[in-house]
Amino acid sequence: MESVIKVSMSVCPFVRSTSTQKLRQLSKNSGGLVQRARQCPFMGNAIEKQEHVRNYSQATESRRASVSSANQPSSTTFASPYRLQNEKLVNPEVDFNAREDSFDFHGFLNDDLNKKRLDKSYRYFNNINRLAKDFPKAHRSQEAEKVTVWCSNDYLGMGKNEVVLNEMKRTLDKYGSGAGGTRNIAGHNAQAIRLESELAALHKHEAALVFSSCFVANDAGIRNSRAQKQIFKHNDLADLEANLAQHPKSTPKLIAFEAVYSMRGSIAPIEAICDLAQKYGALTFLDEVHAVGMYGPHGAGVAEHLDFDTYLKSGINKPVTKTVMSRVDMITGTLGKAYGCVGGYVTGKANLIDWFRSYAPGFIFTTTLPPAIMAGASSSIRYQRATLKDLPVLVGNAADAKRASDLLLEKHDIYVQAINFPTVPIGEERLRITPTPGHGKEISNHLIESGLCGVGQEEDTLKIQHLWTDEQLTLTDADLNPNVINPIINPIGVSSGVA
Amino acid sequence: MESVIKVSMSVCPFVRSTSTQKLRQLSKNSGGLVQRARQCPFMGNAIEKQEHVRNYSQATESRRASVSSANQPSSTTFASPYRLQNEKLVNPEVDFNAREDSFDFHGFLNDDLNKKRLDKSYRYFNNINRLAKDFPKAHRSQEAEKVTVWCSNDYLGMGKNEVVLNEMKRTLDKYGSGAGGTRNIAGHNAQAIRLESELAALHKHEAALVFSSCFVANDAGIRNSRAQKQIFKHNDLADLEANLAQHPKSTPKLIAFEAVYSMRGSIAPIEAICDLAQKYGALTFLDEVHAVGMYGPHGAGVAEHLDFDTYLKSGINKPVTKTVMSRVDMITGTLGKAYGCVGGYVTGKANLIDWFRSYAPGFIFTTTLPPAIMAGASSSIRYQRATLKDLPVLVGNAADAKRASDLLLEKHDIYVQAINFPTVPIGEERLRITPTPGHGKEISNHLIESGLCGVGQEEDTLKIQHLWTDEQLTLTDADLNPNVINPIINPIGVSSGVA
Repeated sequence: MESVIKVSMSVCPFVRSTSTQKLRQLSKNSGGLVQRARQCPFMGNAIEKQEHVRNYSQATESRRASVSSANQPSSTTFASPYRLQNEKLVNPEVDFNAREDSFDFHGFLNDDLNKKRLDKSYRYFNNINRLAKDFPKAHRSQEAEKVTVWCSNDYLGMGKNEVVLNEMKRTLDKYGSGAGGTRNIAGHNAQAIRLESELAALHKHEAALVFSSCFVANDAGIRNSRAQKQIFKHNDLADLEANLAQHPKSTPKLIAFEAVYSMRGSIAPIEAICDLAQKYGALTFLDEVHAVGMYGPHGAGVAEHLDFDTYLKSGINKPVTKTVMSRVDMITGTLGKAYGCVGGYVTGKANLIDWFRSYAPGFIFTTTLPPAIMAGASSSIRYQRATLKDLPVLVGNAADAKRASDLLLEKHDIYVQAINFPTVPIGEERLRITPTPGHGKEISNHLIESGLCGVGQEEDTLKIQHLWTDEQLTLTDADLNPNVINPIINPIGVSSGVA
Repeated sequence: MESVIKVSMSVCPFVRSTSTQKLRQLSKNSGGLVQRARQCPFMGNAIEKQEHVRNYSQATESRRASVSSANQPSSTTFASPYRLQNEKLVNPEVDFNAREDSFDFHGFLNDDLNKKRLDKSYRYFNNINRLAKDFPKAHRSQEAEKVTVWCSNDYLGMGKNEVVLNEMKRTLDKYGSGAGGTRNIAGHNAQAIRLESELAALHKHEAALVFSSCFVANDAGIRNSRAQKQIFKHNDLADLEANLAQHPKSTPKLIAFEAVYSMRGSIAPIEAICDLAQKYGALTFLDEVHAVGMYGPHGAGVAEHLDFDTYLKSGINKPVTKTVMSRVDMITGTLGKAYGCVGGYVTGKANLIDWFRSYAPGFIFTTTLPPAIMAGASSSIRYQRATLKDLPVLVGNAADAKRASDLLLEKHDIYVQAINFPTVPIGEERLRITPTPGHGKEISNHLIESGLCGVGQEEDTLKIQHLWTDEQLTLTDADLNPNVINPIINPIGVSSGVA
């Protein structure tokens, strides 16, 4: 219960950067440290809170004492937080341990888990085994129990694609099951080079770096920077500008944003954000996780889609004119959704990618993805680059998400996962439907007959911007520049873009 | 250059938790906030530093002004840090941007990269393609250019194991290339359940959770806690106890340590650390990354090895007596080294694993590993559990690591990666040799003849503790409890251990 002060102390930059010895010395000077801490708006608040806690726990203590066994030591020694504070600093050799119980880890864990059960955000995983030969069907725990999957992120059914699967099996036979090391130690190979070269070519950026997941790639770009975080309202340019304007142009800044917000389908104003970035001296970090494979004539995402005709014409080559995609500093994407495999990546200028390669712990200390996975992902990217889409994704919303999801699964053999916190904010739980080219008329009718469609739809759904125009949807593979069919892509060098 | 204050403000818990509006209000009250900040030992120091920086930059400014073009705005507006501070807080609408240049991101990146080139820690990746059918050989960028790999973490050559490869190909055909979703959304399946059940059974813990890598698993357990970090001297119990004794027993603590330190082969005193954890009220977090598959009669790692006979006898069953492994709260391991695949995991009590499952962002927001990878890892674990080891790992050291590594590769077709910072501390760069069961007499003689062995060995190498006793090394598969051959392992439930 003294954790209020403990926790506060653990985030105080002064306490963190000062040795215990030094702190002890400072507190000896007529208790000066505690007096100063009281003046700090943060620590002062913690000290005040502690008094309340202490009063409460003293009351509890006297109750507990009456039921505890005789040899259970009392912990009233810590009647005052100041005394605790002083003891810690002045007298660290005091044997706290003989007088106190351990922290109740299991109680803590169970409390946290019960909280989730109470607010209904506790997650029950459904055992769903997607069948490659019977896409979009899956079996549940028993093979005979078939369901239709309506919520997978394998948006294009690439997970069952024969070209990809054959490439993976060939690579397994030749190079084995795993990479056998980190990229620096025995785990850098032809598949990694090929995949990163494909990714750089896809986004028309200088270089690319593959991570074990896009979470790790984003982490390397953002959390790892330890920068102060300010959140701007979803796709709200005025709010973004107000945030940026609070800092001098010379302060390093990064604007991180998502091309498509997966839970609503809303599209970011990428070009206007690039304008603001230029005005206020910020780098742009665009997450195309849900968009790669889906948008743009070659599947490079929303940024490519914004210059659709230019890219359709240039094909595998870099257009000569300036495009939105070329203005974005970093693009992150995933190989685990529309490309049907697993892994994440970042593309950008060579020195930026080389910096991640050299400094990002999530890259340095991780085993390379298996050669077969990287080979499969490369094939998937090549396949999608040379294929115009059959069907864009629709995103639906529904209330009473969990109940509806259970009902669909049990009564209709339809699997649409209920999505809850922390994936969406509390109060905005929903069903998210992801049709794919494999969800034909019959299967779609089955979903419509289940009565799901139209239930709980928000008005918002109607306002969603559709990126694929009617004209674009009439294009066929014959409209692609032939140079995208099996192009020769130059390997970007042994150090991910650095020759 | 005003970043001294900016950076300091970004870690100040008060500034972080207070709205800009509120901060503005506070600073209006006769500049009270800045006065208070001056009294804070941390912020006060930052403000003082800023004065020096400002003086320096004013001098630079006057120099620069003389060469800059006429329309280049001067940035002397920020003559005083207090003024900057005040402007930020009182007057955020002031247009800083018209008067200043952007932060030089590319200069910053290039400086960082040049630093690495100068101190020789810049990494050059070698293109090494390990050949499954010709293990431990690999080809370089040209297929004809063969080398012997002496530094892979595929310690047991499982990457080329037919049982594993066939299982992976079968799973690819049946379930496709990727999982198609996060564990919560369409990505929980029979392979995930099977793998986590295998892992829980391997470590004789209640539950297990698979992550995309062990880096992410460790991150979920440690960095994500945002706890204050204290580092104890490598395997030094006295130093660990001194650290623990600084805090009351009731303060939540976690002791994180590595069973085998991969770069030296030193073994942690696991049992004594468990004793200290009990005495001081800490959880234990044991990283068995380099040990799983390698130690213990069934490959569960060093903790299992410490009760070798007990576990050899009990086989797949949990021994009735208390063991070291059962005292450890969390064990993390990898599927990417001795098990030859990719991915990481944590095992422990059901509520602990359920907590990670429910709260760890690196788990929640990540696509599940491909079914084929999880199936291959399960097979690899089963295979290794029923096989006693042929050859324990030796770890060697060498000076002039990069030069020696290049020489071996170019002259002798031997690949041993030079290992540098941040994997090992600066000044302790080395070659790390990892023989496997595939490195037979002929291949080993080739390494010896290259003149590498004995070069640059540290005295320390001789003091390395060997866990496998001579007696244990005479054991054969026939000494295993037959119950480890294809045991039936009960699935641990849909929520990773929670029924």
